[in-house]
Amino acid sequence: MDRLESKLAKPVIQTLAVIGIGLIGSSILHAARKRRLAARIVASDKSQAVCDRAVEIGFADEVIADIALAVRDADLVIMCIPVGEYARVGAAIMPHLKPGAILSDVGSVKACVFTALDPVLREDVHLIPAHPVAGTEYSGPDAGFASLFINRWCIITPALNASAAATARVRSFWEEMGANVEAMSADHHDLVLAITSHVPHLIAYNIVGTAADLEEVTQSEVIKFSAGGFRDFTRIAASDPTMWRDVFLNNKSAVLEMLGRFTEDLTALQRMIRRGDGDGLFNLFTRTRAIRRSIIDLGQETAAPDFGRQRAPEKS
Amino acid sequence: MDRLESKLAKPVIQTLAVIGIGLIGSSILHAARKRRLAARIVASDKSQAVCDRAVEIGFADEVIADIALAVRDADLVIMCIPVGEYARVGAAIMPHLKPGAILSDVGSVKACVFTALDPVLREDVHLIPAHPVAGTEYSGPDAGFASLFINRWCIITPALNASAAATARVRSFWEEMGANVEAMSADHHDLVLAITSHVPHLIAYNIVGTAADLEEVTQSEVIKFSAGGFRDFTRIAASDPTMWRDVFLNNKSAVLEMLGRFTEDLTALQRMIRRGDGDGLFNLFTRTRAIRRSIIDLGQETAAPDFGRQRAPEKS
Repeated sequence: MDRLESKLAKPVIQTLAVIGIGLIGSSILHAARKRRLAARIVASDKSQAVCDRAVEIGFADEVIADIALAVRDADLVIMCIPVGEYARVGAAIMPHLKPGAILSDVGSVKACVFTALDPVLREDVHLIPAHPVAGTEYSGPDAGFASLFINRWCIITPALNASAAATARVRSFWEEMGANVEAMSADHHDLVLAITSHVPHLIAYNIVGTAADLEEVTQSEVIKFSAGGFRDFTRIAASDPTMWRDVFLNNKSAVLEMLGRFTEDLTALQRMIRRGDGDGLFNLFTRTRAIRRSIIDLGQETAAPDFGRQRAPEKS
Repeated sequence: MDRLESKLAKPVIQTLAVIGIGLIGSSILHAARKRRLAARIVASDKSQAVCDRAVEIGFADEVIADIALAVRDADLVIMCIPVGEYARVGAAIMPHLKPGAILSDVGSVKACVFTALDPVLREDVHLIPAHPVAGTEYSGPDAGFASLFINRWCIITPALNASAAATARVRSFWEEMGANVEAMSADHHDLVLAITSHVPHLIAYNIVGTAADLEEVTQSEVIKFSAGGFRDFTRIAASDPTMWRDVFLNNKSAVLEMLGRFTEDLTALQRMIRRGDGDGLFNLFTRTRAIRRSIIDLGQETAAPDFGRQRAPEKS
């Protein structure tokens, strides 16, 4: 690969290791290479087919299937795997990390990162979890693109006693990839994402399932008339099943808490409909319209309602 | 206006009257004029300001605020107003319709059209309800565009004893505007739309309301991290409050029925999360992914997940 090109810039990281070459892993590889964020980039995946494909794409200096070898010289290791695999992979790589290495991730749930890794964490390894709030409904090594993180938020959740220098390196790594970085506690992250991401995904999965099970309305009718609102729920409900299973299993209490409130509110809305309370419905619908307006006013809306999925792939 | 231009073609309708000049009404006016579907086009709105604006836009031959005068010579009258106003407007225009006139509408609920209009319907007037499954979250006379109905479905729900000739005229009117037309009973329409449109809107309104009321998560955080899925629910929840209030008040039983199933399924999903049933979650998430695929396979998906809202305005 273009080692020479990398050496021309001043890399943030000497050796970067990306574990898991799916949508996010491959996007990091594209972006890190394009922006010369590491002098040497190593990629690893448990699937030999994915490793072979990564060699063909050529966005890493080395593709090493054996994760113990892959992480050996890394200054920054980023796990881009379902959160349910953290404990197993963490235990497997821990003895092989070099002293002072930074271990990070990209998971959509954050408190569980500490639960999974604290039992095996070495004192001379810095754990700095991160969550780029970005994605598409596509998966695999060919799904990634270098611009995925541009102008998207990346939330980092370092522990209170985390090394300031290690935290700063992870922050600047994400900023170099184009993201806006915000730090918060893992617990607060999990609460915020429960309402802005996890519960929306859950109700999208749910309504698609409900529609699939109807007998009075055929599947063909659901599909034909899906433009009335349903269709876009199917997009969100096409996201990676393993990743989302692990999100819900690992953010149980915040999801159940937010889901409880959602259901309470829905029950109240159902009561308004049953009782014909037009004023109550009108007031809610007016209030939600105003919230939409403030999202637009604050520049958090793009022309396309994309669930974060419509950024055009850019070749790195 | 260009009466001459209209006369060059063979119009489907001699005089068309559009009552209510909002998004759908103005889109019909643009499309009917562009495609020369009527020799004479009359528009009417209860708001004088909207009538004045319609004169400026110039998509009707005449804008007549008085609906009794507006419908007087019409062969086809299309009510483009919230369904809650049908009884009042229907009673007001009925004595002034000419014998043999066709009365139609564009409402998102259909059984209530008969409930509202049957008591005042003259025997020599043909009621042929229609519902174009199309829209955007914008409202008013400037929101319309001629291409809104192209390749969208329009559902017509004539009564069993409806005139075949009148039904055919309404069907061809919509086909001329670019829509695919399907006929079904009003009750079945209301059931299909409850799951493909009404309940999706309801849960979108609901989650936006839930998020607005949180104390642990600030509005600013909800807005900032809304790209994780929440943001697009706010788009759907920005739709016209009056229209949607009337939809829920007038499709009560189908909405409550579908909402009941949605809630049952959500309760089962909540139980899976609470019990840590990873296999159950994985199975549902895999099943919903397959449904998404069949929507794409059947050509009912466009690149943009648009809730039917992203068709670029085309000047007529």
